[in-house]
Amino acid sequence: MDVKDLFKKIEDYENKDVVLEGWVRNNRNQSNFGFIDFNDGTYFQNLQLVYDKELSDFDKISKIRVGSAIRVNGTIIKSVGSGQSHEMKVKSVEVLGDCPEDYPIQPKRHTREFLRELAYLRPRTNLFNAVFRVRSVAAQAIHEYFQSNNYVYFHSPIITGADCEGSGQMFKITTLDMNNLPLGKDKKVDFKKDLFGKQTYITGSGQLHGETFALAYKKIYTFGPTMRTENSNTKTHANEFWMIEPEIAFCDMNGIMDIEEEMLKFIIKYVMERCPLEIDFFDKFVEKGLKDKLNKVLNSKFVRITHKEAITLLKEAKVDFEFKPEYGEDIAKEHEKYITEHFNGPVFITDWPKDIKAFYMKLNDDNETVAAVDLEVPGSGELIGGSQREDDYDKLINRMKEMNIPLENLDWYTNLRRFGGCYHAGFGLGFERLIMYLTGVENIRDVIPYPRTPNNCDY
Amino acid sequence: MDVKDLFKKIEDYENKDVVLEGWVRNNRNQSNFGFIDFNDGTYFQNLQLVYDKELSDFDKISKIRVGSAIRVNGTIIKSVGSGQSHEMKVKSVEVLGDCPEDYPIQPKRHTREFLRELAYLRPRTNLFNAVFRVRSVAAQAIHEYFQSNNYVYFHSPIITGADCEGSGQMFKITTLDMNNLPLGKDKKVDFKKDLFGKQTYITGSGQLHGETFALAYKKIYTFGPTMRTENSNTKTHANEFWMIEPEIAFCDMNGIMDIEEEMLKFIIKYVMERCPLEIDFFDKFVEKGLKDKLNKVLNSKFVRITHKEAITLLKEAKVDFEFKPEYGEDIAKEHEKYITEHFNGPVFITDWPKDIKAFYMKLNDDNETVAAVDLEVPGSGELIGGSQREDDYDKLINRMKEMNIPLENLDWYTNLRRFGGCYHAGFGLGFERLIMYLTGVENIRDVIPYPRTPNNCDY
Repeated sequence: MDVKDLFKKIEDYENKDVVLEGWVRNNRNQSNFGFIDFNDGTYFQNLQLVYDKELSDFDKISKIRVGSAIRVNGTIIKSVGSGQSHEMKVKSVEVLGDCPEDYPIQPKRHTREFLRELAYLRPRTNLFNAVFRVRSVAAQAIHEYFQSNNYVYFHSPIITGADCEGSGQMFKITTLDMNNLPLGKDKKVDFKKDLFGKQTYITGSGQLHGETFALAYKKIYTFGPTMRTENSNTKTHANEFWMIEPEIAFCDMNGIMDIEEEMLKFIIKYVMERCPLEIDFFDKFVEKGLKDKLNKVLNSKFVRITHKEAITLLKEAKVDFEFKPEYGEDIAKEHEKYITEHFNGPVFITDWPKDIKAFYMKLNDDNETVAAVDLEVPGSGELIGGSQREDDYDKLINRMKEMNIPLENLDWYTNLRRFGGCYHAGFGLGFERLIMYLTGVENIRDVIPYPRTPNNCDY
Repeated sequence: MDVKDLFKKIEDYENKDVVLEGWVRNNRNQSNFGFIDFNDGTYFQNLQLVYDKELSDFDKISKIRVGSAIRVNGTIIKSVGSGQSHEMKVKSVEVLGDCPEDYPIQPKRHTREFLRELAYLRPRTNLFNAVFRVRSVAAQAIHEYFQSNNYVYFHSPIITGADCEGSGQMFKITTLDMNNLPLGKDKKVDFKKDLFGKQTYITGSGQLHGETFALAYKKIYTFGPTMRTENSNTKTHANEFWMIEPEIAFCDMNGIMDIEEEMLKFIIKYVMERCPLEIDFFDKFVEKGLKDKLNKVLNSKFVRITHKEAITLLKEAKVDFEFKPEYGEDIAKEHEKYITEHFNGPVFITDWPKDIKAFYMKLNDDNETVAAVDLEVPGSGELIGGSQREDDYDKLINRMKEMNIPLENLDWYTNLRRFGGCYHAGFGLGFERLIMYLTGVENIRDVIPYPRTPNNCDY
């Protein structure tokens, strides 16, 4: 049985015998009795195993090392000690898998940097066990939110022949022998000999493909891995991460703000209900005040201001910003911070200058701004970016030409505006940003099981 | 509102006015009245809109073309005609997005080959709309099955530096300019200049990484895209597809058979309950007898036989097989077919000859077979492949050496046998195979939104 199921109904097991399999987190003993902190990975809390001298193999059990896999048979009893309501009085222990003395995960505090080097063992520690369980539960929250609201889960392709993002920003993918590339008459690589008969890439977004399905299903979402080539070594960048990209037909910019707010509250509530021990742990050891922060979001109504209003607010602020806020320009980290602190909660900033936003965003009537919206949250800055999409065929084509987006391979995308086009909108949520926000963990490397960052692709 | 929500409680809306947005699937009219088949993509069934001459813009509505996006306001009434219980009596229609006369998706039968060329429009047809909705619902079934059974959803990395699968079978990935590759002193590509500082690949499986998390969480599953370079143009091969790879600690070969059987029944039941119209449609137009097939699986107990028993059965069969069945050898498609027909239901074949299976599978005591198990289902052959993993460190190392698996980059994998190792097992389910099985659709290209196959990477 799983320890999680045991803890869920522990009163029912009082004075009953159970057999459990799991790992030894710690083993402390004195001459007449000992305690094993036992964990099978299904539940955050350890089960305390108590064994005493009366057991014929007391000495053997005393010597079981940290990290060992065991099968234990014993009786669940009310705990006499403090720290837990119940514990197990051991009848017998069988070692299934030993662990050497030099096992690197010991019952003491390890630094995150040390554990990052041991990515394959770190989920056995409290912190990472909690992080990756929250990651799993948050993923399910997302699926449940969208599925219960009539969305279709759309698997956008990872490999693409279209280089609309600019091939310099995408990974190239090939089956050719890179030390012996076939060349054409022009002395360039002959990609006709590659598996797909042309040069192919890994996409950095499923949005354009997502729009094609939104115009068939009304509501779709993607949830899959995304790879980008950014050569930046920061706490918030990784070259492989997961994204959620919902796209909704018959929905405008206000509509997606409603959806984003509802979705975010749903996820927070879902995770807090299902991972209370993990959230308590983060609140205590990772980000003091995390629970208050999350509860505040649940009970707030998100503020909505335009980019212009945000700049005015920043200009009027009595703060000496490193970057001077300007109309028509981007908003820096320090500005985001000021704004979310000013409103003391999440803020939607809408109607951004068109020149700093993507080609597919709907041009507003002022001809200067687009119907884009970023959600800024206290402590983390931008969490979600979205927009209403340009649904006017001519305006879209003009914008693509202005921004040198190649038209020829994107007729399937632009045609959506000709074949029963409609107003529609969508957004992108970086899954790791969400997990960092939910756990308080500050480095993206610590919320991805096996992170890939520049010069780092171990395991 | 979504048409799905309308249909769910259509009696509640009787004689009430609603506003809907969606697309025109068909528009037929006579001099005094007309019918629009209306669909917003959230529900398989069309809503019939009835409009009559009394409307001031009757002529305009009569001319709305197939494919157009409209907003309609009208009253839900009991239908007098046959074919549906309710319909909408139109009060007004607004065209949101026109559609040209030459719109390729017309209300007639299109071949799947024709629609494959129009991958971005085909989800607007009945068949593909049903297929991709079932795909979405089946994905949710999988998540719900595992999450409700205490599994952690594990995101295995896509990019890897380990070439344990043999680099010839994996896509290479690079940020280097392939027409101007930097060379080292040995005249070979200098991958130190690549983003990760070494040659990197796209993994074809998350299993090895999955095992590391199973030995921390007991029960994990992956569900993500997988890319393989096989240059085969068959109905069942694609170069990009989605896989589910559960891995369970303290579980043996019999344990995973139990899990596979329970999971498959759960998914079938879940999809049949949530997509009854779609399943009816497939049963009628795609695979006659589909519903019977699925119901039979729900009510059967899967047979379990060893590979040796299977070969004996085949040898004794009075059938002239193209490939002669032999002990110690693989089982061909025709054999799978015979076996599932013989038992008239799903069959687990266990204990395969070690020489035709992977290095990580547990060697049985006979030293000739491994604790591997394939699930064969009637009509589709192999659906799931799994095994207990080799948990003996020395045996694993020996087997890797025998099979020329490079040891140096896989110490994190082999160490799992040293650091609290335990008996564990897992399996791989190709998601597209499952969708083909659930829908009766025979070509993998028709169950993937944007399929990637050799020489085919459009969109």
